[in-house]
Amino acid sequence: MNKYKVTFLPDQKEIEVARGVTLFEAAEKAGVYLNSLCGGEGVCGKCRVQVTQGNAKADKHSIAFFSRDEIRKGYVLACQTRVIDNLEVVIPPESRLEEEQILAESHLEEQRIWRETSPIAYSEPDWICLHKRPEDPASLFEPLVSKVYLGLPEPTMDDNTPDTSRIVRELKKKLKYPSFEIPLACLRDLSMKLRRHGWKITATVARHNDIGRILQIEVGNTADRNYGVAVDVGTTTVVAQLVHLKTGQVMGVEGSHNLQAHYGEDVLSRIAFACGKGPLDVLQQAVVQNINTLIQTLAQKKGIDVEDITSIVAAGNTTMSHLLLGLMPCSIRDDPYVPTVGLYPQVLAKEVGIDINSQGVLQVMPSVASYVGGDTVAGVLACGLADKIETTCLIDVGTNGEIVIGNNEWMLSCSASAGPAFEGGDTKCGMRATRGAIQKVEINNGRVIYETIGKAKPRGICGAGMVDLLYELVRNRVIDIDGRFRPSVQDKRVIEENSDLEYVVAFPEETEEGHSLVTAQSDIDSIIRSKGAIFAAIKSLIDYAGLTFSQLEKIYVAGGFGNYLNIDKAIGIGLLPDIPRERIEFVGNSSLMGARMALISSHAFEKAISISQQITNVELSHFAPFADEYMAALYLPHIDRESLFPSVNY
Amino acid sequence: MNKYKVTFLPDQKEIEVARGVTLFEAAEKAGVYLNSLCGGEGVCGKCRVQVTQGNAKADKHSIAFFSRDEIRKGYVLACQTRVIDNLEVVIPPESRLEEEQILAESHLEEQRIWRETSPIAYSEPDWICLHKRPEDPASLFEPLVSKVYLGLPEPTMDDNTPDTSRIVRELKKKLKYPSFEIPLACLRDLSMKLRRHGWKITATVARHNDIGRILQIEVGNTADRNYGVAVDVGTTTVVAQLVHLKTGQVMGVEGSHNLQAHYGEDVLSRIAFACGKGPLDVLQQAVVQNINTLIQTLAQKKGIDVEDITSIVAAGNTTMSHLLLGLMPCSIRDDPYVPTVGLYPQVLAKEVGIDINSQGVLQVMPSVASYVGGDTVAGVLACGLADKIETTCLIDVGTNGEIVIGNNEWMLSCSASAGPAFEGGDTKCGMRATRGAIQKVEINNGRVIYETIGKAKPRGICGAGMVDLLYELVRNRVIDIDGRFRPSVQDKRVIEENSDLEYVVAFPEETEEGHSLVTAQSDIDSIIRSKGAIFAAIKSLIDYAGLTFSQLEKIYVAGGFGNYLNIDKAIGIGLLPDIPRERIEFVGNSSLMGARMALISSHAFEKAISISQQITNVELSHFAPFADEYMAALYLPHIDRESLFPSVNY
Repeated sequence: MNKYKVTFLPDQKEIEVARGVTLFEAAEKAGVYLNSLCGGEGVCGKCRVQVTQGNAKADKHSIAFFSRDEIRKGYVLACQTRVIDNLEVVIPPESRLEEEQILAESHLEEQRIWRETSPIAYSEPDWICLHKRPEDPASLFEPLVSKVYLGLPEPTMDDNTPDTSRIVRELKKKLKYPSFEIPLACLRDLSMKLRRHGWKITATVARHNDIGRILQIEVGNTADRNYGVAVDVGTTTVVAQLVHLKTGQVMGVEGSHNLQAHYGEDVLSRIAFACGKGPLDVLQQAVVQNINTLIQTLAQKKGIDVEDITSIVAAGNTTMSHLLLGLMPCSIRDDPYVPTVGLYPQVLAKEVGIDINSQGVLQVMPSVASYVGGDTVAGVLACGLADKIETTCLIDVGTNGEIVIGNNEWMLSCSASAGPAFEGGDTKCGMRATRGAIQKVEINNGRVIYETIGKAKPRGICGAGMVDLLYELVRNRVIDIDGRFRPSVQDKRVIEENSDLEYVVAFPEETEEGHSLVTAQSDIDSIIRSKGAIFAAIKSLIDYAGLTFSQLEKIYVAGGFGNYLNIDKAIGIGLLPDIPRERIEFVGNSSLMGARMALISSHAFEKAISISQQITNVELSHFAPFADEYMAALYLPHIDRESLFPSVNY
Repeated sequence: MNKYKVTFLPDQKEIEVARGVTLFEAAEKAGVYLNSLCGGEGVCGKCRVQVTQGNAKADKHSIAFFSRDEIRKGYVLACQTRVIDNLEVVIPPESRLEEEQILAESHLEEQRIWRETSPIAYSEPDWICLHKRPEDPASLFEPLVSKVYLGLPEPTMDDNTPDTSRIVRELKKKLKYPSFEIPLACLRDLSMKLRRHGWKITATVARHNDIGRILQIEVGNTADRNYGVAVDVGTTTVVAQLVHLKTGQVMGVEGSHNLQAHYGEDVLSRIAFACGKGPLDVLQQAVVQNINTLIQTLAQKKGIDVEDITSIVAAGNTTMSHLLLGLMPCSIRDDPYVPTVGLYPQVLAKEVGIDINSQGVLQVMPSVASYVGGDTVAGVLACGLADKIETTCLIDVGTNGEIVIGNNEWMLSCSASAGPAFEGGDTKCGMRATRGAIQKVEINNGRVIYETIGKAKPRGICGAGMVDLLYELVRNRVIDIDGRFRPSVQDKRVIEENSDLEYVVAFPEETEEGHSLVTAQSDIDSIIRSKGAIFAAIKSLIDYAGLTFSQLEKIYVAGGFGNYLNIDKAIGIGLLPDIPRERIEFVGNSSLMGARMALISSHAFEKAISISQQITNVELSHFAPFADEYMAALYLPHIDRESLFPSVNY
């Protein structure tokens, strides 16, 4: 079989591949990750690359993505171009999936903010007061997997119970589980271990279904060497936090782009991949690779042995959870939207290929329904929504927006497909909340003031920036309340491109890549559809519950907007309901926080199970008023501004 | 490496082995099993073979086992002789470990008797009335592993709970377990299975710790194809019974000699092997090979697929249980006699190498202490001792004798090392209860009438025969009440051999092998020590409990005597206490019966757990009066005949 060398610039990464492999696959092999929305179907045009040396013909179907000039310069779609020659390929910045270094930092920042402002001080044992057992707070800080040191009394003729009974007897004094299980693997040489090491051992115990499962028995006292990892498995981003399970201390956090994105940007295209082109394993392995890399990085940075990591709690939407466990997700997509499982079994991490202690466990957070997943349950747990007497609301804005409303007596959830406009997708210059993303915008008298993440030259606009921009455009009367550019507007920033109007946020000389950053009519339409879907979902759920917005004591807003969300402007565009500002709180990654809570407290995990079972999901696609609510929400802020958004005035 | 061919006669089995392998190992490889009491140490002289062709030097240390004539004829100890030439080797009958075909049949016979006479009609669902839940008898016939057919309602928008919740919801209607667990392996393609096969499945569910563990999910209705195997793992014999778990019907039974016997005849020599010469694995693999062969034979005979065998319940003494599971038994031997585990975990059969369904489970019956094992617990379960208001007693006579006394409020146990005299060991012409064993003896006026198993020519004397013989010898005043041959006796059957007296039971012309069958003074001493140890144990336990024999409503006698035990004569020699004959019942293999009860009823298994926890074990080696009781019992029937054996009169 012929082999060809492909060199990717600017990274200077070289790879040798067989004839006929696509450039997309070659790049992946070389460790260069490209954008893809469509999963390699050649229809999204996100994986543009420039072939600067060697023979590579642009596929005729993808010619439409390029200008004549670009075709001359060698631009092709990587997913539609097969290697038939030695090549040199340049990856333009916009086609690159960057590892989101910034995100991890921003998460740390987010957590700092959360730590200071959240109703639940999360890393102190007493946060678990939400479980209402203040009489015994120490026992509540009880990780899903604990390491318990036991100095056993030596047997005598009057006390010659079997070794395992002796262990369980002592364990019961320290862990209040009704029963314990010891697998055969721990028993084989147990009698030697005990007798040769003076009856001093450390048992690693995982809690599952009220049973303490002994995972390993080490000699001596190793109780200090017990670490866990909380993982937020997002459709777009995977973030992992390393936690010292003896103290609950967060030791580090790392984020990366979900490698599954190569096979489709959103949940539905990944299901389509798994259930069509497939195989499913590819998706499972991709996210497992994410997690393994994050864990290795965290362990290296903190100088710990991965063998001392005994547990992982992962929170993700229902599809991500199924893919992580290698479960066929096909039925999630089809009416009546039935997942395989809601209460995921506790499994050995190695069963899915995650490299931690060989007996370490993986627990996926339980989900509510096909489109209300473990990430939402984790968020509800983190916000304490299920423990409050007052009715509050959690809004998690992602490609799918999930809403939960309720209190300690009832909870309702729903989800709406919002599209990726707030996460950097679906718009010309959208990008995720990483370095160089415009996150704040103000427009005064035609002058645009913006702020980027990392104070870098702007490279695009992230979700928080989109909220601000939309608000500023309508406030400055550049666009009308239906989102259309006003015909009468006189502004040098409004230009016509391909008979479509665009607003120039940053001119070429200001930007990283020397192209102007714009928002086109189609972008504005996308954002309005996104915010309309989310608001309509909130409104539908409130109506379904027979409430009004004013009855919400608090709204927690979670999601990947960035480090920051301007609540006023979010209300101003009609994304969030018009209630007093101080009742709305941006909480960042509540999914990760809930996963960590479950990791460091098996009581919190139990609470998550009961949350997942208590929430009643309302399927909006079968809820008739939703369509009308959606239509009414496609205005800025809303067609019914007077009664729903009385405080919005522009 | 040089290879030599060894041919074993009369089997004509050939094997090629490397230079230096022992004849014992070569025979084992060839599938020819030899006797061994000492575990290959060259000290018991049980593995005599005759080398008829080729060069094989008798080890000088073992010369003492042979006459000059035998040495000339090529007799050697197989365990001490290394192969350094092509050889032809004749195995004399007495050196052969025979597969005990008869045993299986005798067990069937035993069960027929048991079925008709036992207080518990074991294969009918209503036997479980001992559990006192007659209000719901159907639910009590609930195998440890059930197969449940489920025709699930298809999901709709109003009922779109996850697939697993749908399964558990239906299962809960049929199995009253508080919760269910489904392993990842069952989930991967579950959604497809359900949707492609009309939502009709059969779940295989194992009960463990009140949790229903789903082992496999098959499409369609396979509930009829569910088999289990009950195994009695004896130190000497392994017996397996195939049971149809849908009906409880016993389909067949097979027995074989425990292959571990190659490494030592009794429990202590096997522990010594595992903890010294080792490795332990060899012992585990030996008994697993026993079980696999028995299962294959049963499956073939009954035309069933081993994949349809979903469960095994094994009962054995504590050492056998540890060895089967591959657990180090060393601490069992040492004061204070602590086993690794008493409540054995439910494990996958394949974890220990047993070939049944790949998800099938192995449950070992719980034990009480190092020398009161799961076989005794199974016996107590089978006799219903723990459920009776009246105080009864179970005596299990083996190399170790175990005694349990008690009722539904309390139970005491003890064990005493009785030696193998009742199992065919430790005596010149002793043999196990197989074809050709003398099992009944009567002596009248110097005339001996005997009966053999299978009505064959006599080959030896089994335990039941030894009881009869000893009784007849003392009744006929051939021996005195201290077991010594009377100096004054005039009997042509009493001969002197090597300045020791022997009694000839069968003359050479009557026997299979043409040698006379005798019982020597040393044999009589052995039997008296055995019966003395057992009676002393019973007496000690009765005294410990503050009872008298007359307060025992019933004594169940279990053990490997044969198909038969003459109760009168057993009392006559002082083995069993002198209570009215109708209160004593020989019950055969109560261990196997208890294992089967646990197999077909998880309630019975739970009962076994509570039995193992309720029994208080009395360690006789630390119970001062035991030694005196033992000394007093070394007479026929006892030193205190008048008060303890008033009905015995010879």
